[in-house]
Amino acid sequence: MHRPALAFVAALAVLPAVARAEEGMWLPNAIPAAELKAKHGFEATPALLEHLQKSAVRFSTGGSGSIVSRNGLVMTNHHVGSDMLAKLSTPERDLLKTGFLAKSPADELPCPDLELNVLWSIEDVTDRVTGAAKGAADTAAAGAAKRKEIARIEDESEKSTGLTSEVVTLYQGGKYHLYRYRTFRDVKLVFAPETAIAFFGGDTDNFEFPRYDLDCCFFRIYEDGKPLQPEHFLSWDADGAKEGELVFTWGHPGSTNRLYTADHVAFMRDVEEPMGLKRLWRNEVKLTTFMGRGAENARIAREDFFGTQNGRKASQGLLDALQDPAMVAAKRADEDALLKRLAGKPEAKDFEDGRAMVRASLDAWKRLAPDYFALERRMRAGTLAGVARTLLRMKAEDAKPSAERLPEFGDANRESLEAMLYSPAPVYPQLEIERMTSMLSGLAEERGLDDALVRKLLDGKSPRARATELVRGTKLADVAARRNPDMNDPMIRFMASVDDQARAARKAWEDQVDAPQKIAYGKIAAARFAAFGDSVYPDATFTLRMSYGTVKGWTAEDGTKVPAFTTIGGTFERAAERAGDPAFELPKSWLDAKARLDGTVPFNFVSTNDIIGGNSGSPIVDADGEVVGLIFDGNLDSLAGDVVFDGTRNRATSVDARGMLEAMRKIYGAAALVDEMAPARK
Amino acid sequence: MHRPALAFVAALAVLPAVARAEEGMWLPNAIPAAELKAKHGFEATPALLEHLQKSAVRFSTGGSGSIVSRNGLVMTNHHVGSDMLAKLSTPERDLLKTGFLAKSPADELPCPDLELNVLWSIEDVTDRVTGAAKGAADTAAAGAAKRKEIARIEDESEKSTGLTSEVVTLYQGGKYHLYRYRTFRDVKLVFAPETAIAFFGGDTDNFEFPRYDLDCCFFRIYEDGKPLQPEHFLSWDADGAKEGELVFTWGHPGSTNRLYTADHVAFMRDVEEPMGLKRLWRNEVKLTTFMGRGAENARIAREDFFGTQNGRKASQGLLDALQDPAMVAAKRADEDALLKRLAGKPEAKDFEDGRAMVRASLDAWKRLAPDYFALERRMRAGTLAGVARTLLRMKAEDAKPSAERLPEFGDANRESLEAMLYSPAPVYPQLEIERMTSMLSGLAEERGLDDALVRKLLDGKSPRARATELVRGTKLADVAARRNPDMNDPMIRFMASVDDQARAARKAWEDQVDAPQKIAYGKIAAARFAAFGDSVYPDATFTLRMSYGTVKGWTAEDGTKVPAFTTIGGTFERAAERAGDPAFELPKSWLDAKARLDGTVPFNFVSTNDIIGGNSGSPIVDADGEVVGLIFDGNLDSLAGDVVFDGTRNRATSVDARGMLEAMRKIYGAAALVDEMAPARK
Repeated sequence: MHRPALAFVAALAVLPAVARAEEGMWLPNAIPAAELKAKHGFEATPALLEHLQKSAVRFSTGGSGSIVSRNGLVMTNHHVGSDMLAKLSTPERDLLKTGFLAKSPADELPCPDLELNVLWSIEDVTDRVTGAAKGAADTAAAGAAKRKEIARIEDESEKSTGLTSEVVTLYQGGKYHLYRYRTFRDVKLVFAPETAIAFFGGDTDNFEFPRYDLDCCFFRIYEDGKPLQPEHFLSWDADGAKEGELVFTWGHPGSTNRLYTADHVAFMRDVEEPMGLKRLWRNEVKLTTFMGRGAENARIAREDFFGTQNGRKASQGLLDALQDPAMVAAKRADEDALLKRLAGKPEAKDFEDGRAMVRASLDAWKRLAPDYFALERRMRAGTLAGVARTLLRMKAEDAKPSAERLPEFGDANRESLEAMLYSPAPVYPQLEIERMTSMLSGLAEERGLDDALVRKLLDGKSPRARATELVRGTKLADVAARRNPDMNDPMIRFMASVDDQARAARKAWEDQVDAPQKIAYGKIAAARFAAFGDSVYPDATFTLRMSYGTVKGWTAEDGTKVPAFTTIGGTFERAAERAGDPAFELPKSWLDAKARLDGTVPFNFVSTNDIIGGNSGSPIVDADGEVVGLIFDGNLDSLAGDVVFDGTRNRATSVDARGMLEAMRKIYGAAALVDEMAPARK
Repeated sequence: MHRPALAFVAALAVLPAVARAEEGMWLPNAIPAAELKAKHGFEATPALLEHLQKSAVRFSTGGSGSIVSRNGLVMTNHHVGSDMLAKLSTPERDLLKTGFLAKSPADELPCPDLELNVLWSIEDVTDRVTGAAKGAADTAAAGAAKRKEIARIEDESEKSTGLTSEVVTLYQGGKYHLYRYRTFRDVKLVFAPETAIAFFGGDTDNFEFPRYDLDCCFFRIYEDGKPLQPEHFLSWDADGAKEGELVFTWGHPGSTNRLYTADHVAFMRDVEEPMGLKRLWRNEVKLTTFMGRGAENARIAREDFFGTQNGRKASQGLLDALQDPAMVAAKRADEDALLKRLAGKPEAKDFEDGRAMVRASLDAWKRLAPDYFALERRMRAGTLAGVARTLLRMKAEDAKPSAERLPEFGDANRESLEAMLYSPAPVYPQLEIERMTSMLSGLAEERGLDDALVRKLLDGKSPRARATELVRGTKLADVAARRNPDMNDPMIRFMASVDDQARAARKAWEDQVDAPQKIAYGKIAAARFAAFGDSVYPDATFTLRMSYGTVKGWTAEDGTKVPAFTTIGGTFERAAERAGDPAFELPKSWLDAKARLDGTVPFNFVSTNDIIGGNSGSPIVDADGEVVGLIFDGNLDSLAGDVVFDGTRNRATSVDARGMLEAMRKIYGAAALVDEMAPARK
């Protein structure tokens, strides 16, 4: 992907200070009401906003969704639900391959460890969090004081309201909000199509458009053993969206870095992204060879593999954009402009101070990254290793008061933690060995075999021999063994052997990278508020955000006009065009149903909404708040969205509501489901 | 791949000092005659040795072959010939996919730039080369003096004999031999099967056994417009080889490092191999995505892709072996034993000195590698970049006397150089752009976009924009433009912009890495000669070597007995077992012929011969010097062969002569060819 220098310059000149075009992932309690009214004549009533907020769902597996029936039906993407589809599959019942439809409520499949959250309320706790750090000796102490205060706020809230409570760090440390959620853990699988059509075109068409994917999946929430009767759920607009129509997404974008300084973006470009890509390339090849060894290997590693490929394509797209020299140049020009605007004000100095602190934190990043990533992040290679570390630390942390524990062991997070820890999802020894071998050999590649940590971990054996010994030796595949763990279990002892080092690496990272960055971006955000007012949205935080946009194609760099919609009929044309490539083979259900289908029905479409990874599964609704589609992807030009939004070409990709209904009725015999969702359908 | 520590210790305790088991890649003029006689009762007559030597062929594309008929027919592997198959293909005529058979001599396809060499004579020039360095001020000067003397020897020999002349560095600098070759450049393609059966099982079965591959390919040498009537060619043993039979390979192993010190092996393990693998992983993923974009992309990049996958699997196998801590430990124990043996002798100090020099060279390696690899090795990214650099340097080098030029521009190499430079092989702009983009973005990943070299190369553009501009702008795809180059061509100017730096990086590498290592290993080799006599084979150098071994299966680590032979019938069973995986789809020709085939005919077999990459395409002959098979691979356990040979499990893999003949007759209708090759067939 390349774009001429000017496109970036134009887009960036005013960024990330004030949102232009249809940029912005807006907080649900701070939407740009005036702008929406002025530009689109749209008025957001409090009732509509509450309705949309409380119909939106966050998936613990890292995606978004929405409640779409009065009986607690939840719509999301196939690729958000696929983690559950994999966990519910066996060699004999491969749901990713065959798809699934529950003929009746009794046939719905209970999910082993899925958690859905619905945002119920928001409270600003900035003063309390930052107040706790007043008088701290240094940034590290300030960071620790804030973390402790956050744990206290969460525990108090959880105890007083019974709602899952989470303090969210906004503007990279500029503000702190307490989010309270209704949490659901009794969730069942209702419907999913085959991966062949959910991910039609595979890696090749991923992040591209035109696109032809039925990337949807449906679950149902249960409460007290019965389908949830929700206060809020979305209804459908059976007419769908038209070109040029105003549409909204309500979802959970995972992470953006648009507030980042130019230095920080250059660091991403030269250090962080290349490092991440190296790991993704390595994993992709290793998983490919593992899967090549047989059909069962291919089945059990598919989720890891798709995740890796998807991450690689996203990261490559971002790096391609960053490696255009115009990108950072524009960021620098933007900072100069900001400083000019603030000339003579005290915030100019704040901004300069913040920028210098960021630079210092990046030096610490480089210095600390090898130990931090190796010991604290990658050591959890596979389910068993993750379980072992959790059990080990749980024992130590539970001896402390909740506010003093590592946050993931705090009382506020206990139920979620246990749901994961005691999940009955299957564990595959051959895949566990592969993951641990890859982790150990990766460490040996980075540090050499004579490195003290590597020697300790390998214990005189090769990476594969050591991984095999640990996976075969541990009892932790059995959930019962996790409930009453033997602290002499070999996997737990393996984790214990480096736990002091791992905790020290984490503390160093928190003190020297995280804490200073939060303070630095607090200053930078304040400077931006001073320059541009507070019409600035915070970077994405995997919390609920609204984005608005219009249904619209675009003109590619080479002049090609990319239309806004594809059709069901186009799917068959694309399959014919790429015959011979397994990624473009349509499932039998589609081939059989071809004659019954209306080829003119819209299937996928693009819009200018500002989204990013985590938004997958978000509903896309019209001005009445009715579903017109289901977000599942962005185009290649959207991959720079981590640091910049370029409204001329950045597009969000959705499954059209009409295409979804057509396929569910005519291909999958899911008419009952369609009727349940869309009672008002004309 | 893992092996218990003891297997290595046992194998290494006596290595690489004296060959045991059937280890050894022996010089054609120094075969272990006494050992062969004592152990196998085999007597090698000078006539037989000359016959085998002069029937062996070296492929300029990096493999081996043999002359197998009185009409100049040459047998090699499909994967050695595939480079030509690709160059002879078009979107309409995809020889890699369809295979090829010339029905008559008139149908044979002339190869655009293939060079075959047959070793004609050997002369020891050690004294002359080392003598030239006497009195040199330092190791760098000594290295330069030797390189100049080598060029002089080659030029003199070429002028006086008309034979291609090459001084080979043996024992990493312990000895120097002058090799003279008969060279053939008029070569035509005669027969190749489909890639689907030549590489049946793809990456999954590569380096594995049991195996079922018809990895063969036939060319014909022409001289003065007529088929060559060779003085020597191999005949076939239609009965093939039996289990336990003594067999020989005569081929061109590319490179081994068994003389390496323990420090050097540890360096390979911790630095060189991980660095190489990173590049291979990256290239494999990038090529996969490039090929996914369409059938024509897949066709034009296939050769690059297979080469990358093959290199990755080989390198991964080697690294897996190296990452067993027992490997380097055994190497260290071996060095201790050697020093004990040499105690009190001056060679003990030589050995220690050599070891210290190697260590110093490895420090230089680390320091110099980034510039050397970037500027001198990777900059030739694609055909056009390679051509541009060659033209640029040719102009500068041709102004000097031959012995003072960079060796590749010396008179002795001129014909080979021009054959490549003016090759009419097709150039694909989209693949050229991909390769240059990858090279430029790779540099940006390594050095950051603000690095001076990166800035110079990118010229203010993104890697893809810059690569596109260069590839679209150059005229060098046209061979006529290469014969009379415009030195202002943008690709030549691109190369010229960094040529001083590139030459400096190369000189630093030669002076501080290559030259000291040659001297160091000269000392080390001398110490080994002193300890063990000269029954030591030199590391592989892509020159002709003989290895002997026996046809024999092995017992895998988990106790599985792997048989020595597979059969034609087994091929169909394997295809059925892996149905659904495209790598295991048999071509239509095989499915159609199934009923006609004798399923019991041996297809592939393994033997204990010591081979390595470059040996691909070597004939495997019996005690009478008759062909019983065609080397095409080694097993996973052979991948450690770069640094160690473990006779208990290391196996070479061949296509059985009988399977080859069965398939050629009954599947491909190539009876005339079979009759031409095997006139004495019973």
